Amino acid sequence: MTTATLQNLPRTIEWVGDLSGHVALIDQTLLPEHLAIVQCHDVQTLWQAIRRLQVRGAPALGIAAAMGVVLGVRSSRAATVEELRADIDGVCAYLGGARPTAVNLFWALDRMRAWGAAWGRAAVDGLKLSLLEEARRIRDEDAATCRAIGCAGAHLIRDGTGVLTHCNAGWLATAEFGTALALMYTAHEAGRRFHVYADETRPLLQGSRLTAWELSRAGIDVTVVCDNMAGLLMRQGKIDLVVTGADRIAANGDVANKVGTYSVAVLAEAHRIPFYVAAPSSTFDSQTPSGDRIPIEERDAEEVRRGFGRLTVPADVPCFNPAFDVTPARLIRGIVTERGMIEPVQRDRIDAVLGKEPGGRGHHTLRRE
Amino acid sequence: MTTATLQNLPRTIEWVGDLSGHVALIDQTLLPEHLAIVQCHDVQTLWQAIRRLQVRGAPALGIAAAMGVVLGVRSSRAATVEELRADIDGVCAYLGGARPTAVNLFWALDRMRAWGAAWGRAAVDGLKLSLLEEARRIRDEDAATCRAIGCAGAHLIRDGTGVLTHCNAGWLATAEFGTALALMYTAHEAGRRFHVYADETRPLLQGSRLTAWELSRAGIDVTVVCDNMAGLLMRQGKIDLVVTGADRIAANGDVANKVGTYSVAVLAEAHRIPFYVAAPSSTFDSQTPSGDRIPIEERDAEEVRRGFGRLTVPADVPCFNPAFDVTPARLIRGIVTERGMIEPVQRDRIDAVLGKEPGGRGHHTLRRE
Repeated sequence: MTTATLQNLPRTIEWVGDLSGHVALIDQTLLPEHLAIVQCHDVQTLWQAIRRLQVRGAPALGIAAAMGVVLGVRSSRAATVEELRADIDGVCAYLGGARPTAVNLFWALDRMRAWGAAWGRAAVDGLKLSLLEEARRIRDEDAATCRAIGCAGAHLIRDGTGVLTHCNAGWLATAEFGTALALMYTAHEAGRRFHVYADETRPLLQGSRLTAWELSRAGIDVTVVCDNMAGLLMRQGKIDLVVTGADRIAANGDVANKVGTYSVAVLAEAHRIPFYVAAPSSTFDSQTPSGDRIPIEERDAEEVRRGFGRLTVPADVPCFNPAFDVTPARLIRGIVTERGMIEPVQRDRIDAVLGKEPGGRGHHTLRRE
Repeated sequence: MTTATLQNLPRTIEWVGDLSGHVALIDQTLLPEHLAIVQCHDVQTLWQAIRRLQVRGAPALGIAAAMGVVLGVRSSRAATVEELRADIDGVCAYLGGARPTAVNLFWALDRMRAWGAAWGRAAVDGLKLSLLEEARRIRDEDAATCRAIGCAGAHLIRDGTGVLTHCNAGWLATAEFGTALALMYTAHEAGRRFHVYADETRPLLQGSRLTAWELSRAGIDVTVVCDNMAGLLMRQGKIDLVVTGADRIAANGDVANKVGTYSVAVLAEAHRIPFYVAAPSSTFDSQTPSGDRIPIEERDAEEVRRGFGRLTVPADVPCFNPAFDVTPARLIRGIVTERGMIEPVQRDRIDAVLGKEPGGRGHHTLRRE
């Protein structure tokens, strides 16, 4: 592990080469057993990668969708920009069907479509090239956002800090660096030594499969625990800080995130451990006044029942499998965004940090994986 | 499910026939996929069943050990009672090696040895028969204890009650009925309709594999949740009562039980939901003044890393895998024992219910599975 650094982490998703190039992405379904890169030379392969969860995480899905538009139209025989716009619409409709509940995917498709609509010149090839530039910009903007989140929150992690996180709000969910994990990468780059505990995060184990993988590859000390061990860790004094990501943040600061986040927040409060959320400002949904307005989506019971290929629940017994839960703002010490720290989590502080327009409409993320 | 009743549950472990008979036990490693009965005609097969966790749970292990002594000596060619006692000692040493940390197993072996030592007659065959009677008595006493626990606590479960439990303190861990689940079986026999939520209980999934199986077979409505969903259930108002078992109870009422129990107790307090423990009086360890004196045993990390036959944690990342945690008495509303309800959980109430000698020494249980 002594040679592990951030350099060991390949990009989650990137466009390789020029317009005739391809999309390369880490196959997250094979981790941690194998690190394999999926090369998508056509939009169908990328569609499959989204569908099969080879790429997941709201920002990464947005980037995948944007690059998918380029794959889908670069060989178009459209003779006019008008015809190319029709092709863009078709590809966007196709890509949207790969993951119909992934809000960030649609946000990126909208942005690519708008880019095409605003194109003022006649050259079809010029628009194709420009779409690639826009897709790369979406990726680079996300990377910059993640870096900024890291800078805004890394002071929370000092030498010797014990940090607990839940699910994967990391490198693999974003262009790079992540949101909650960005704090850790930034503190790590600053030379601080600390220890991370990663909840394995049932049912899909994003914590043990993904968070543990990326942190250990970067040379950060990490230990995996089952979700039900977080309370014991806190009682033993091993946790000084909890940081998670967010799928969606209501206007009052209530946070929807991977199921189990709420339990961790309650446990943190009972042990007087500060609980922080790290997320881009785009995660704020100003149209949702509070968390109780966010419906809790239920996912397929089979994820719990046969998550690992074996039957672990009797076939005739129901399973409850909510995708996420809502943590009320009162349990959250602060929210780290690329625009700065929101602390305490109150309406006026949210507005002050984010400005009058917190998050563009349609830009809020709601990860469901 | 309409035809499901308690009659559907075979005995966890029993002696079939006379002294030339055999031990029959439910193979718990195959549940919930298959219900299979292991027939042990010799002590070696029983030793393997203990070793492979085909039988588990403190009381069930004690019964298995006692019956194993009978299997081991019934064909002994000892000509005198003195020679037979030496054979008993040998079998006890052999059986103790199958599960060296199972306190209840040693308690049962001690009891069988003491029975042999107290045998005052000359007939070798008479002692063999008497050992079988003693082993059956151990089983029947446990069954009676479980029934009494059920009677003492069933009033907590009314029509419409939502009950959360953790791990398997049930039929499969005991002669029958269980401890925490005894409350549910008794309420069910009284005709009450209620709903049980079973934490799946990582890493070994005793909740989803065993608790869900036995409750559903008995016709009790049960839903499985991942451990990290308990907080959400409580917040949604679905839980009115939490009941778990106990591995060991300190003199002040602190309870050691399957890891995750402490988190559930903290969550219950935060939601003002009563948290009860159900356990036989033998679980009290008067020699341990408080829970902080109970060392937290760590188990093999591979249980977390490859619990489902697949690698779910990177091979070079450590896992923390404590066997149990300690819930302080202040979080426990009451402890249900076969001698009655201890509520509130305070030293004087414990002594009043259990009498001056709470639990025989060496009789306290410490399940580690």
